[in-house]
Amino acid sequence: MNMIDIITRKKLGQALSAEEIRYFAQGAGDGSIPDYQLAALLMAIRLNGMTPQETTDLTLAMRDSGDVCDLSAIPGMKVDKHSTGGVGDTTTLVLAPLVAACGVPVAKMSGRGLGHTGGTLDKLESIKGLSVAISEEDFVRQVSDIGVAVIGQTASLAPADKTLYALRDVTATVDSMPLIASSIMSKKLASGADAIVLDVKTGSGALMETLEGALDLARAMVEIGTRSGKPVSAIVTSMSQPLGTHVGNALEVKEAIDVLAGRVTGDLLEVALLLGSHMLVLAGRTATPEEARKLLLEALHSGAGLAKLKELITHQHGDPACVDDVSLLPQPALIRQVRAKREGYIGQMDTTALGLAAQAMGAGRAQKTDTLDYSVGFILPVRIGDHVSPDDVLCTLYARSTQDADKAEAAIRAAITISDTPVEKPPLWYAIVTKDGIEHFV
Amino acid sequence: MNMIDIITRKKLGQALSAEEIRYFAQGAGDGSIPDYQLAALLMAIRLNGMTPQETTDLTLAMRDSGDVCDLSAIPGMKVDKHSTGGVGDTTTLVLAPLVAACGVPVAKMSGRGLGHTGGTLDKLESIKGLSVAISEEDFVRQVSDIGVAVIGQTASLAPADKTLYALRDVTATVDSMPLIASSIMSKKLASGADAIVLDVKTGSGALMETLEGALDLARAMVEIGTRSGKPVSAIVTSMSQPLGTHVGNALEVKEAIDVLAGRVTGDLLEVALLLGSHMLVLAGRTATPEEARKLLLEALHSGAGLAKLKELITHQHGDPACVDDVSLLPQPALIRQVRAKREGYIGQMDTTALGLAAQAMGAGRAQKTDTLDYSVGFILPVRIGDHVSPDDVLCTLYARSTQDADKAEAAIRAAITISDTPVEKPPLWYAIVTKDGIEHFV
Repeated sequence: MNMIDIITRKKLGQALSAEEIRYFAQGAGDGSIPDYQLAALLMAIRLNGMTPQETTDLTLAMRDSGDVCDLSAIPGMKVDKHSTGGVGDTTTLVLAPLVAACGVPVAKMSGRGLGHTGGTLDKLESIKGLSVAISEEDFVRQVSDIGVAVIGQTASLAPADKTLYALRDVTATVDSMPLIASSIMSKKLASGADAIVLDVKTGSGALMETLEGALDLARAMVEIGTRSGKPVSAIVTSMSQPLGTHVGNALEVKEAIDVLAGRVTGDLLEVALLLGSHMLVLAGRTATPEEARKLLLEALHSGAGLAKLKELITHQHGDPACVDDVSLLPQPALIRQVRAKREGYIGQMDTTALGLAAQAMGAGRAQKTDTLDYSVGFILPVRIGDHVSPDDVLCTLYARSTQDADKAEAAIRAAITISDTPVEKPPLWYAIVTKDGIEHFV
Repeated sequence: MNMIDIITRKKLGQALSAEEIRYFAQGAGDGSIPDYQLAALLMAIRLNGMTPQETTDLTLAMRDSGDVCDLSAIPGMKVDKHSTGGVGDTTTLVLAPLVAACGVPVAKMSGRGLGHTGGTLDKLESIKGLSVAISEEDFVRQVSDIGVAVIGQTASLAPADKTLYALRDVTATVDSMPLIASSIMSKKLASGADAIVLDVKTGSGALMETLEGALDLARAMVEIGTRSGKPVSAIVTSMSQPLGTHVGNALEVKEAIDVLAGRVTGDLLEVALLLGSHMLVLAGRTATPEEARKLLLEALHSGAGLAKLKELITHQHGDPACVDDVSLLPQPALIRQVRAKREGYIGQMDTTALGLAAQAMGAGRAQKTDTLDYSVGFILPVRIGDHVSPDDVLCTLYARSTQDADKAEAAIRAAITISDTPVEKPPLWYAIVTKDGIEHFV
C-alpha cells in the first residue's frame, strides 16, 4: 500500500477501503507519513467527502491508533456524554452526579477549553486541590467505588486524531463533516464507553452555527455509532446564547452547585435533565426518557446529586467545603455591574464574542499553553427575549483589573443587541437523532 | 496576508488575487511556508482549478521567485523551444544549429532525462569533454559570438517551482493543468526568452496521453504567453512512437549528426523543421512558416547546420571530431539485433514502456541521483504501419551486458504489437495553437 495511491483515489472521488484508511491513520499516529501527504489527503477529503462507511472506518482506525480505555471492570453499561462545545455549558457538572446518583456509572474523559469555549477539566481544577490527572487504574476503581469520575484524556488516546486535528487547523480543512464526526467519535470510543449521548450545539456560539449543519453532524455521529455497534443518541441544542447564566471556571462550578442544591433552575438544568435522561435510557436504567427524568429530579430534590458531586471532589483530592460554601471558590480582584443604557428587549447575542470576552479576561486560552485565572468571568442574568429597563443589570463582571473589566464591558455590550420590539425566546433544543431517525422538537 | 485564508479561498472555489499568489509562491521559494500548507493548497488547486489569469499570475510569481536570466546583451529576438518530453526526441540538437545558422540566436536552457524521457543535457554530455555548466556571462557571450548555446538551468531559476514540483510529485497533484502549464512557463520565462515555441507531445509516451489533454495544455500555455506579453506558439505533435529511430544518449547525438549531415530524413527532421520554422517566424526572420522552412532546408543542405553544431561543441569544450566520425561517440559492450518472429504490420507502441526499457539499460534515471551509461539504448528502424516479415530487424540493442539485453529485448517485444491486418500510419502532428486560435492539421 502506498500513500500516493491513497491520495490519488480520494482525489478522484473514490471511496477508500478500510485497509487504506487504517494505513494512513496508523501513519498519522506514528509519524511515519509526512505531514504534506496527510495535508493533501485532508484537502481531498474536505472537497470530495467520505461515505458513512469510510467515516466509520476512519473513526475506528483513529481509535485504534493508540490506547483504548478498558472499562470492563466497572459493572453495568457505561454511558458517556459529549458536547461539541459552548459558552456557559456546565452540563457535565450537573448531570454526571445526577446520573451517577441514579445508579448509572459515569466514567468521563473531558477536555480543556480552547478559543471561546470552556472545558470541564478547567472548571473542576478551580476547586482547591482537585486533580484530573488520574491513572486509568485509579479511574476505573473510583467509578466502581462511587459511580463517577472525571479525568483528562491520556496522551496516548487516539494519537492519529491529534496529528490530523492539528494539521486541519493550519490547512483550512477543519470544516469537513466526516473529519469532524470521526475526530469526536474516535476519542469517545477510545475512552471506552458502551454508549454515548451527544450534545450537538447550534447557534452563534457553536461549532455548527446552522441547524442544518448541526443535524448533519448529529446524523453522521449517530451513523458511526450504529456501524460500530455502539448505541449513540444525539440531541441538537441551542447555543444562540450562553447555556447557563455563569461564564468562567469557578463561576460555572458555583452555578452547577446552585443547580444541584435546588437553588437555581432554568436552561442549564433543563438541558442537563434532557441529556441525562437519554443517558439513563441508553444504560437500560429506564425504558423511556420521561421515567428517566423523574428519577433524575428525585436525585436532585433528595440532595443525592449534590452529595455525589461532593464525593467526586473528595475522591479526586479536592476540598469539598466549597459545595456547602461557594464563597470558598476563587474570588476575583473586582466585581462590576454592567447596566442597560436603555429600555428594550434582549435581541440576538454573539455567543462566540461573549466566550472570547471571558477568554480575554483570563478565563480561557487563545493558545494551548496559556494559563488561566479561575476566578474571572461574568454572570449574565438576561436571556434572549427578556425585557430590560435602564439601569437593570445586564451583566456582572468578575475581573482581574479595571482595564480588563473595561474591555470586557465593551465587548459584552457589543455582543448583545437590544431591540425596541418584543423578541421571541429561542427554543432550547431542536431535535433528537437516534439510529431510528430524527424526532424534531420544533 | 495569511496562508490559511489563501487555502480557504481556493478551497471554496474562489479565484486568488495576484498578491495572494505572489505571497505563497514567494513563500514556497524561500521556504517560509510549510510544506503541509502548500500541499493542501496544491490539492485545492487540483480539485477547484485556476482561472487563466490566476495561472498567469502563478507563472510570473514563480518566475520572479528566483533569478531571471538577462539576455538583452544578445542582439535580436531570442526564441526558445520547449518540449513536454518524449522518447527519441532529439529535436533540440537538430533545430538549434539550423535556426542559429539562419541568423536567429538560440539561447537554450535544457533539462535532464527523468523517468522514461530523455534530456538534451545528458545527450550533449555523451560528447567527450562537453560541458553544459556555463556561467550566465559566458552563456550570453557564446550566443552573441556564435548564435547558439545549450546549458542547464541554474539552481536559482524559479525556486518556487522547484519546491511545488517536488511536492506535487508526492501529493498526487501532478495532473493539474494550471500547475503543469505554470511550471513549464515559469522556467521558460525565467530563462529570458523573448518568444517561445512549445512542442506539446500527445500519445503513449507523452505527459498528455490524449489529444484533448495536449490541446488543453497547449492552449493554457499560449494564454499565459499572451497575458504576459510574450509571443508563444504551441505545436501538438505525436508521441505514439519514438520520434527518431534512435533512443539513448550517444545514439541520439549520432542520429542528430546524421540528420544534419543530410544522411537521414524522416519524422525527427520533419518535426525539427516544423518547430524551427515557427521559431524563425516568432523571431521575425520570415513572415511565414513556409519561407522559414526553405531557409532551414538551405542551412541543412549547405552544411551550415552541421557546421554550427560543430561550433557549439567546440565552444562548450567538447571534442568536435565525433561530428565527422560518429564512431568516436561512446560505444556499448555489446550490440544485438532483435528480429521479428512473424509477419504482420507494426501496430501500437507503448512508447513509455520503450523509454523505460532504455532507462533500465542505463540510458536514463529512475531517480535524480542515478548515473548514466551514454553508450546504451536501441535503434528502432520500424514505424507504426510498417510491414515486417519474419527475421526483419525490429530493433538493434546497444547494451552493457547479455542480461541487460535480454531484459530490454523482452520489454521492447512486449511494448510493440504486431497486427495481422494493415495499420494506418499515425499523423506526425495534430494542431498548432497561437494567440489567434487553433489550426488543426488533422
